[in-house]
Amino acid sequence: MQGKTQLHYARQGIITEQMQCVANDEMLDVKYVRDEIAQGHLIIPANINHTNLKPIGIGEACRCKINANIGNSSVSSDMQSELAKLKVAIESGADAVMDLSTGPKIDEIRRSIIENSPVPVGTVPIYEAAEGVENIEDLTVDALFEVIEKHAKQGVDFITVHCGLLAAHVDLALKRTTGIVSRGGALMARWMQMNKAENPLYTHFDRLLEICRTYDMSLSLGDGLRPGSLADASDEAQFAELKTLGELTRRAWDAQVQVMVEGPGHIPFDQIEMNIKKQIELCDGAPFYVLGPLVTDIAAGHDHINSAIGGTMAAFCGASMLCYVTPTEHLALPGVDDVRAGVIAHKIAAHAADIARKRPGARQRDDELSRSRYALDWNRQFELLLDPKGARRIWESARDSSDACSMCGPKFCAMKTSQKIAAK
Amino acid sequence: MQGKTQLHYARQGIITEQMQCVANDEMLDVKYVRDEIAQGHLIIPANINHTNLKPIGIGEACRCKINANIGNSSVSSDMQSELAKLKVAIESGADAVMDLSTGPKIDEIRRSIIENSPVPVGTVPIYEAAEGVENIEDLTVDALFEVIEKHAKQGVDFITVHCGLLAAHVDLALKRTTGIVSRGGALMARWMQMNKAENPLYTHFDRLLEICRTYDMSLSLGDGLRPGSLADASDEAQFAELKTLGELTRRAWDAQVQVMVEGPGHIPFDQIEMNIKKQIELCDGAPFYVLGPLVTDIAAGHDHINSAIGGTMAAFCGASMLCYVTPTEHLALPGVDDVRAGVIAHKIAAHAADIARKRPGARQRDDELSRSRYALDWNRQFELLLDPKGARRIWESARDSSDACSMCGPKFCAMKTSQKIAAK
Repeated sequence: MQGKTQLHYARQGIITEQMQCVANDEMLDVKYVRDEIAQGHLIIPANINHTNLKPIGIGEACRCKINANIGNSSVSSDMQSELAKLKVAIESGADAVMDLSTGPKIDEIRRSIIENSPVPVGTVPIYEAAEGVENIEDLTVDALFEVIEKHAKQGVDFITVHCGLLAAHVDLALKRTTGIVSRGGALMARWMQMNKAENPLYTHFDRLLEICRTYDMSLSLGDGLRPGSLADASDEAQFAELKTLGELTRRAWDAQVQVMVEGPGHIPFDQIEMNIKKQIELCDGAPFYVLGPLVTDIAAGHDHINSAIGGTMAAFCGASMLCYVTPTEHLALPGVDDVRAGVIAHKIAAHAADIARKRPGARQRDDELSRSRYALDWNRQFELLLDPKGARRIWESARDSSDACSMCGPKFCAMKTSQKIAAK
Repeated sequence: MQGKTQLHYARQGIITEQMQCVANDEMLDVKYVRDEIAQGHLIIPANINHTNLKPIGIGEACRCKINANIGNSSVSSDMQSELAKLKVAIESGADAVMDLSTGPKIDEIRRSIIENSPVPVGTVPIYEAAEGVENIEDLTVDALFEVIEKHAKQGVDFITVHCGLLAAHVDLALKRTTGIVSRGGALMARWMQMNKAENPLYTHFDRLLEICRTYDMSLSLGDGLRPGSLADASDEAQFAELKTLGELTRRAWDAQVQVMVEGPGHIPFDQIEMNIKKQIELCDGAPFYVLGPLVTDIAAGHDHINSAIGGTMAAFCGASMLCYVTPTEHLALPGVDDVRAGVIAHKIAAHAADIARKRPGARQRDDELSRSRYALDWNRQFELLLDPKGARRIWESARDSSDACSMCGPKFCAMKTSQKIAAK
């Protein structure tokens, strides 16, 4: 299997086990799934060394997916906490996880996460590479690629690499209200500045593709210049990089490497549709993986809601995966409860968009829930809810002995009154 | 002043103190505010007996407003809890509150809420009227109107009355997945069924208008047939009632009574725009006050997020006020923390829509926040955030001694890296 990607097989007309799995999961015809992969509009991030993976499809033809970022920082968290976050993320419905560790034991944490994760695992290799040097400018190209190859060997399914942030773009970003807010993007920009050189992930892009092809590790082309504020949304820097990402997408396809493209960020609600359309156009329909977008800058502490609002609109307009944002965004590293809150908020967003796009079967669960709600069948309701435990806890904390809840009490229960009317 | 409404004055070309207050608040020309009121496109719910009111404008020309429902049920809560909820709702940014009490001491709770509320107070008089009888069908028309008049005298600024739910509509609703989910709507439908009579709020609509005009109490025409599930969204029952609400809107205008129209409910994301446009068309641009809409049925426990998603889209498309939904929706009566969570979620939604609609000054706070974020000026950030206390608590729980937060730690702080690049 070495060196043969899902994209390779699809182009050969071959249906793989992974494609069959995705087709079943999505209620789609497997040939359609294969054809979408062949065109680059759908990816199945499935590193040949991630042996316990249950593959998922990411693309407009599929249900919108959500990714949960976990990982430590130098200030906070250890291995057990990260595995606890992984568990909660998956239980709550995350379709993919990224290990964004920037603190101690990066390597060990990543190995454990891959070992314990049935969902695709993504990383941002520049973090580990940067951890290995005192100043980012001391990082050598070989050292960077060694880290990338190590991730690939370990079974990482997709990597975020900021290949499209060119030296010429940096000045555009420095004019902004919030400059460069992508950690990886800022590190690459600093490297280029201090070394007076072009982005090595761009100049050595073929070397990157070679590694990706060998392990069928998918590329997630990072948006190092995503806007970090509404003031910077849809600006020249953002779209200059996006144009480069479009070029790199086509080069990846030529090398049979699966690729998705990352997107913003902070975007006013009225500009979301335009942003998605522009990505689809510039990147020839490669799956779009967005962070948020956040539709206001003033919601820290509640940015999971902010992001779910923008994410619903983005997914409705064609984004294929939402990267969650948790309530601690802009303030602190998320803990286990924040991970749960972030995943659920974005499950709501992705699911709402699936319904709005009329994806196969998307509304079945809602319809069944509504029938059980009208029947006041609480146990069935809890089974069907996105957060059965949380909902049951609220209900039980306040209900009386009747089957109405404390919101209305039995006399004012509209469901009961409605049923009385119908019975007459 | 008795018998003279803001609509009356506006039509006479008179600028009232209330109009001036709204114009200042909204950064709008006061003549424009007056003209919008004269056309019925903007209302200032300001009962002449609500003496400590700081008036607000509700209409497309204004910032989108949010309403917080408080009030007890037979199962839960007392007077002190309701006043605590009022306090938290206003502190968190609610523009209006509705007292939806259905339990003991309705009258006493409402008096206290009005006395303590600088924001407009709304009620649903049918609740108190229903509390006074064993079965809803025993309610007399006079008893219902006595309650309405009492609310008006006490200073209630707007009332939800389900005047547009006609006997002929009930059968349409009974075909549904979730029947009638509006409490007031279900009570009126049951009354009509048992008394074999038309809706008294419709047949005696002129009597209602007389009371409203006397105290300048605004009408909020309730949508007793709002869909309670995605399956029932945009159906015949919903739009039959809406058409009647349009007729009643015009009758209210003829009587110089200020009026807004209530809307759904549970609506798939892709149908929200159509729903708003239809209301604007059928109700000649009367302000639209929506509950949610909720964009999925399976999010109980997190319906404030669900509602904030639909609410942003609704406000973006033209809704003038969002009724909040709290995390306990469908499960229990909200407590103080739920009220706060509900208000903040919908402040995000309303604010995001204000930005997207480019309302005067809407983005200033975001831009200032972003500048302070880039400068790592944490104290200024907290001042500008929607939830300063909550955000500070998260930040302080995890930060180290540097001015970077625990999310990235100092080495990976993109803001710091970006500033280093800019300094070079």
